Amino acid sequence: MPEYKVTYFDLRGLGEPIRLILSYMGKEFIDNRITFEDWPKYKGKTPFGKLPFLEIGDKVLYQSTAILKYLAPQAGLDGKNAEENLEIDMVAGVFGDIVSDVARWFQTKNESEKEKLKETLINETIPFIMERFETILKKNGGYLANGKLSWAELYVVGYSSSFPGLIGIDLADKYPAFKELAKRVHSLPGIKEWVEKRPKSPL
Amino acid sequence: MPEYKVTYFDLRGLGEPIRLILSYMGKEFIDNRITFEDWPKYKGKTPFGKLPFLEIGDKVLYQSTAILKYLAPQAGLDGKNAEENLEIDMVAGVFGDIVSDVARWFQTKNESEKEKLKETLINETIPFIMERFETILKKNGGYLANGKLSWAELYVVGYSSSFPGLIGIDLADKYPAFKELAKRVHSLPGIKEWVEKRPKSPL
Repeated sequence: MPEYKVTYFDLRGLGEPIRLILSYMGKEFIDNRITFEDWPKYKGKTPFGKLPFLEIGDKVLYQSTAILKYLAPQAGLDGKNAEENLEIDMVAGVFGDIVSDVARWFQTKNESEKEKLKETLINETIPFIMERFETILKKNGGYLANGKLSWAELYVVGYSSSFPGLIGIDLADKYPAFKELAKRVHSLPGIKEWVEKRPKSPL
Repeated sequence: MPEYKVTYFDLRGLGEPIRLILSYMGKEFIDNRITFEDWPKYKGKTPFGKLPFLEIGDKVLYQSTAILKYLAPQAGLDGKNAEENLEIDMVAGVFGDIVSDVARWFQTKNESEKEKLKETLINETIPFIMERFETILKKNGGYLANGKLSWAELYVVGYSSSFPGLIGIDLADKYPAFKELAKRVHSLPGIKEWVEKRPKSPL
């Protein structure tokens, strides 16, 4: 059996959806966490200078949504046809816009620009998308696409679990259908055990 | 036959990959272009406040990579198995990081921050990724994944055709393997005709 190794920073962020799907699949994996201090030493050795990446034996997989999509059929978390996969890809893509905006805020140095980005994120981008996600969740049996669990929920719930420590907001406080979803994801077999044993990181 | 309608701004950008794939598929489509001035009127009516979107009959598809992935099997531009789709998703995801950074630069208001972002984009992000793409293209029969044409090339070539007008650089000037790729994509049946007849926009 090939060895699975997830390399990311010592936080949940974009590493967590991959850790969640592997846990859901019942795969043991090496949870390799790199400090921000050590990162410059590793950066040049990664495929495209970014984390996370996943090693499966000798194969190196990068780009978190590409990794999730690759593992999804093995996990039973893909769509059953092109229409279903479209629905999943669309909501995941929308959430990817939040991910980009958070990264953009995180990397901005200028203090006033940074503050403005955070305001826009918290007062505009996140509510705009999350209000629409609430509508989808309510219409859709509590899921983001096709009325059933897919890799999109692991992506959204896994990544946003960093928000309280990262940008000071907990989506579950404001969005009840999302709160239910997060609870449901965190109770899934494999994921429940992972969440209990995972390293405690502030974000 | 359902009607295809692409709605985007009057520029190539993220609309162009969709226009390219539809042209490659031989599909007639309505090329609906919205001015920046009119955009606020439409924004609230779009699925998630963003362009482009594609209407196929009554169905509204959003998120450009989700749209490309959905059309790809019909165009013969998807991978033939999970491993091939992974390769395509990974390079497309990497290029998506450039797309996000360009959007980030575009939306930044603070002049000095904006200037710094552009410098990073032009001197670091784009060369870092494009040098790796050059290596991949050379090793890979001139394509980004699996040694054959996929939707990833249409995404990369279509979007980056806005770069000269947008950020003042032409990838084809600096990256010979990419130049060949762009030439090849622009000579494809359907795409060749589209490129000749498409509206002339500065970006």
